[in-house]
Amino acid sequence: MRILISTLLAMAPASLVLADPLPSWEDTGAKEAIIAFVEEVTDPASAQYVAPNDRIATFDNDGTLWAEQPVYFQLIYALDRLRERAEADPSILSTDTLKAAAAGDIAAIAEGGTEALLEIVAVSHAGMSVSDFQADVRYWLDTARHPVTGMRYDDMLYQPMLELLRYLRDEGFQTWIVSGGGIHFIRAFAAEAYNIPPEQVIGSTGPTEYVDGTVMKLPGIDFVDDKEGKPVGIDSRIGKRPIFVGGNSDGDFQMLEYATGGDGPSLGIIVHHTDDEREFAYDRQGHIGVLNRGLDEGPDRGWIIVDMAKDWRRIWAE
Amino acid sequence: MRILISTLLAMAPASLVLADPLPSWEDTGAKEAIIAFVEEVTDPASAQYVAPNDRIATFDNDGTLWAEQPVYFQLIYALDRLRERAEADPSILSTDTLKAAAAGDIAAIAEGGTEALLEIVAVSHAGMSVSDFQADVRYWLDTARHPVTGMRYDDMLYQPMLELLRYLRDEGFQTWIVSGGGIHFIRAFAAEAYNIPPEQVIGSTGPTEYVDGTVMKLPGIDFVDDKEGKPVGIDSRIGKRPIFVGGNSDGDFQMLEYATGGDGPSLGIIVHHTDDEREFAYDRQGHIGVLNRGLDEGPDRGWIIVDMAKDWRRIWAE
Repeated sequence: MRILISTLLAMAPASLVLADPLPSWEDTGAKEAIIAFVEEVTDPASAQYVAPNDRIATFDNDGTLWAEQPVYFQLIYALDRLRERAEADPSILSTDTLKAAAAGDIAAIAEGGTEALLEIVAVSHAGMSVSDFQADVRYWLDTARHPVTGMRYDDMLYQPMLELLRYLRDEGFQTWIVSGGGIHFIRAFAAEAYNIPPEQVIGSTGPTEYVDGTVMKLPGIDFVDDKEGKPVGIDSRIGKRPIFVGGNSDGDFQMLEYATGGDGPSLGIIVHHTDDEREFAYDRQGHIGVLNRGLDEGPDRGWIIVDMAKDWRRIWAE
Repeated sequence: MRILISTLLAMAPASLVLADPLPSWEDTGAKEAIIAFVEEVTDPASAQYVAPNDRIATFDNDGTLWAEQPVYFQLIYALDRLRERAEADPSILSTDTLKAAAAGDIAAIAEGGTEALLEIVAVSHAGMSVSDFQADVRYWLDTARHPVTGMRYDDMLYQPMLELLRYLRDEGFQTWIVSGGGIHFIRAFAAEAYNIPPEQVIGSTGPTEYVDGTVMKLPGIDFVDDKEGKPVGIDSRIGKRPIFVGGNSDGDFQMLEYATGGDGPSLGIIVHHTDDEREFAYDRQGHIGVLNRGLDEGPDRGWIIVDMAKDWRRIWAE
């Protein structure tokens, strides 16, 4: 049967081949499972039919839609800005973490974990309006280059995931980002990069203040959109349980659990970073994108583990 | 010219008359200004054209889309539930405010202001899952009746505003609620009442917790979506400046200021409660829906003051 389909595909006119909604995915199982799910829930004749209003898909960003090595790109942005600010006013480096950050000591920051990241972001991202901040992020994306690949950061998007986002939207889904990254940071590029508008970006947030017609960013973090925070953020900002979820690390576990724990049909996928030649290979070890529980429990929960090396024909956005 | 148009309308076939997008609005100026604005920003040939992605309209709820007298309907729900809980366990009435609330002493609650309201909501709305809470709100709406009109609360929607919401959506706008009311409370009925989905409802929020696959409501309030909070909530959840805003009280002032303070075209309207026969007349005095600054500064800022008695042909939803 598999051979017959391949033969038919080889014989098909170009228009049919082009109609493949996920051309950068190999025919190795994950792709077929995704398409079968989408066809099932969008078929009005199916018992598993889901009305368009309830076709909510949520995706993690770092490591799921774009790369996250050697560290989260937002941290690289924050370090660049912190260094600039410290040159103008060294007194802002008031803690060991901030001094390490300004010195570019990634290992020390990594050891400090999430708290160190939040401290750096709090100092480097505050004290300006949201629109000024986002203009600065866009300027940085235009000028900065990735230390390993030499690529623009916003070119390091995963082509197979871009195709998946578009496929889902074509089938009536809303595609949301639910990221531990900062909400204003992601919104600065999500519309152009992913065709996801600001109102469908959920992320970690800091306090803001409305002053004289402008919304200003204040120091601090008031919501961390990671782990248990992801279902909390989804409830607060969407108010519906997603039916399709993509993640890549244990920070996405609860979002996958929440989405696939409802009564109706659902699908969870985990992007497994297995490709050290074309991207980066990592999972159980390290400080970024750690994936243990998802690998251990995901298959029994029916989640699809996407093997980047095996399941993806290409990695980077075209 | 006005006579001529009326004559033409009287002579027009029924289909043309039905094509009026705001049939419950009198031809007294507000309606014409709204239609002129919408036609301008949706006309690709206009210098004021706004792309569909940026056609964001935000509306207050209490007193703007549905009634709010003699007190916010959510408070009536809260008092009903508090009374039931106190019958089962009188010890929950641990403060003077809660005792007054359980006794139905609206005047005492009103004197306590926003803090009293928040205290009552915190005790009456917590300790259950979001979905159980919303099912209970829907049950309450099915069974409770308004003390003055005897109507269902969710029938006390303003027909002219329902027409405006639909007109805006037909013209490619997103219609959002930005309310001081509780986000989970409003979402329980907004889809059915206004055709506004949960993800386009912004409101005050309390803390929640993700436990075993369910999002639970905890006691307390962590965001008050009123006054300066409205632009803050809009930035956080929409990430764009609205171009059309409707409100009715000074709690909406900053939202109107924010929306109409951008570089592009915008329109703000204030629903002025002038109709003591068909609804309730109130503005500068009292505890609910106080409107001073909007009346004083609105006209100079170009905001339209909608006179319910004069500008609306009918009040309640059909």
